[in-house]
Amino acid sequence: MTTTAPVKMVLDCDTGVDDTLAILYAALHPAVELLGVGSVWGNVDLDTATRNCLHTVHLAGRPDVPVARGADRPLLQTEPVFAYHVHGDDGQGNAGTGRVLGEPVAESAAEQMIRIAREHPGEVEVVAVGPLTNVAIALAACPELPTLVRGITIMGGAALAPGNVTEVAEANIWCDPDAAAAVFNAGWTVTMVGLDVTMLTTLDDGHRERLAAGGTLGQYVAGILDHYIGYFAAASFGERRSCMHDALAVAVAAGTLVPDLAPLVRAYVSTEGRTRGQTVCDLRGMYMGFPEQEGARCRPVLRTDPAFADQVVDLLVAAGDAAVPVTPVAGTEEESA
Amino acid sequence: MTTTAPVKMVLDCDTGVDDTLAILYAALHPAVELLGVGSVWGNVDLDTATRNCLHTVHLAGRPDVPVARGADRPLLQTEPVFAYHVHGDDGQGNAGTGRVLGEPVAESAAEQMIRIAREHPGEVEVVAVGPLTNVAIALAACPELPTLVRGITIMGGAALAPGNVTEVAEANIWCDPDAAAAVFNAGWTVTMVGLDVTMLTTLDDGHRERLAAGGTLGQYVAGILDHYIGYFAAASFGERRSCMHDALAVAVAAGTLVPDLAPLVRAYVSTEGRTRGQTVCDLRGMYMGFPEQEGARCRPVLRTDPAFADQVVDLLVAAGDAAVPVTPVAGTEEESA
Repeated sequence: MTTTAPVKMVLDCDTGVDDTLAILYAALHPAVELLGVGSVWGNVDLDTATRNCLHTVHLAGRPDVPVARGADRPLLQTEPVFAYHVHGDDGQGNAGTGRVLGEPVAESAAEQMIRIAREHPGEVEVVAVGPLTNVAIALAACPELPTLVRGITIMGGAALAPGNVTEVAEANIWCDPDAAAAVFNAGWTVTMVGLDVTMLTTLDDGHRERLAAGGTLGQYVAGILDHYIGYFAAASFGERRSCMHDALAVAVAAGTLVPDLAPLVRAYVSTEGRTRGQTVCDLRGMYMGFPEQEGARCRPVLRTDPAFADQVVDLLVAAGDAAVPVTPVAGTEEESA
Repeated sequence: MTTTAPVKMVLDCDTGVDDTLAILYAALHPAVELLGVGSVWGNVDLDTATRNCLHTVHLAGRPDVPVARGADRPLLQTEPVFAYHVHGDDGQGNAGTGRVLGEPVAESAAEQMIRIAREHPGEVEVVAVGPLTNVAIALAACPELPTLVRGITIMGGAALAPGNVTEVAEANIWCDPDAAAAVFNAGWTVTMVGLDVTMLTTLDDGHRERLAAGGTLGQYVAGILDHYIGYFAAASFGERRSCMHDALAVAVAAGTLVPDLAPLVRAYVSTEGRTRGQTVCDLRGMYMGFPEQEGARCRPVLRTDPAFADQVVDLLVAAGDAAVPVTPVAGTEEESA
């Protein structure tokens, strides 16, 4: 990095436990200038995701960050499938406050993404950590989007690692493979922070203890992680630890997590048959240091420092109580139904 | 292994440079009782593959091993696609002797496979290191084949590694995905020795020098490896070394190469869309030591000792001149066209 200016970012998320950490990281880290958050269906329904996005920016002491509602179902209008078993009924590990803080802006998440990109041509990084529905809509509405933004970084997919919904499909891509295919086909380079690295960067009860001993914010995060870690213990690890997933994409986009290996390769999203939702990356060059490929426009992150989890915990602990509004934002709180 | 009796084996191959090493290993190693060889289209056309199978068993001093002709195209009668650029026009790295030694038996490769299995119920390991056309034909003709044999081991597929024809498809599976799907669907456990390990067990010019300094057999193998190593240098490794591929499957079947990691998992062959030819193995359990899966009937070999290449070279060097017929088998030799 030749500049220390923070990275202008629009963050699109289906908030979700790990999305909450991603928003907190983006809202709190000085390397990020968070210009807007978009909500999308995925881990939870759109209403819940939107409420959690708003709750999180308030929790971070950043009610100034606009939250825009996005799509409530896949691009092709099929029925959405959610993951409450992973994220809890409230998308906060059944440990949310139940508070409704603030309101979404009038424009849609796709509209907000386009507007912010136009206001800062060449400067904005789109970071999408849910299904890619909103990004595909923005691309359809504004085909020049790839030339307007600095780049796009997603949490999603798997290049060499197994999937986590099917044998080959990662959840965010599996949710809306058609939208993902559009995003991978568009004329930009997609930085893909997928299961290859996110399965290896985990949070455990040691991290939760450090968080719980921190301020209000850390205590909140420690609370929502309990159920999430329980899910991963049963489903993936056989011991109490969870992935961190989404925050890695924010950090890679911000330059605060520099990949140890991220080759530029050709890639596509399978939309057919049993492999639907697979992100097929052409890694055949792996045995000779990934020589240049014509038409390569995907950068799957294949290796990062697993100790990144500590960096996130440090940031949240350091935030202490300072970032958390002691009282609800005036006029914006009501008990949720 | 509780027994030292050699493993009864039927070896099905599209001979090919690496198939030649596999046949030599099976014919020469005391851990294998080679009951028959079947030829199949694949690396080269069926006539060339059959001639090379015969040439190789004679080279090994084993003209007693019957060679049966198999299929000359995929199961669904589509046009075959060969790989002369890998194996040379003669399938022997353009370094074959040109000699035609012996003749195939009257029965087909599938018929021979079934007959031998019936003659030794529960004892025969089918080892298939080419397209799985013959095995699929044998399964169709004899649906009880899975209960008649000891097991099946293939060289083919890729579980975590990239493909070598498409991004996801390995050559043997890619050649005949429908046949492969039949073999994976049948009621036996398929031991899959694929690119996950065969890309990591390589032969280089050091091995060639050792072979060339050995007897007639080693010198022959050193000769045919030159072109093959050249192909891999350009296509895969960026330096002069080649995979050994097929011999690994023979050795795993024989118990002379014991996998360090080979979980029993569910698997299927993709036959649709752009991922056609992919061997999809359910490796989602990898983060918790591969817990038992219901319906698991594939054993992808994920880790072996790369030093196995030395074992093969040792065997060929030790064979010296002894195994090689100094004069052609009477009445069976003519100059090839």
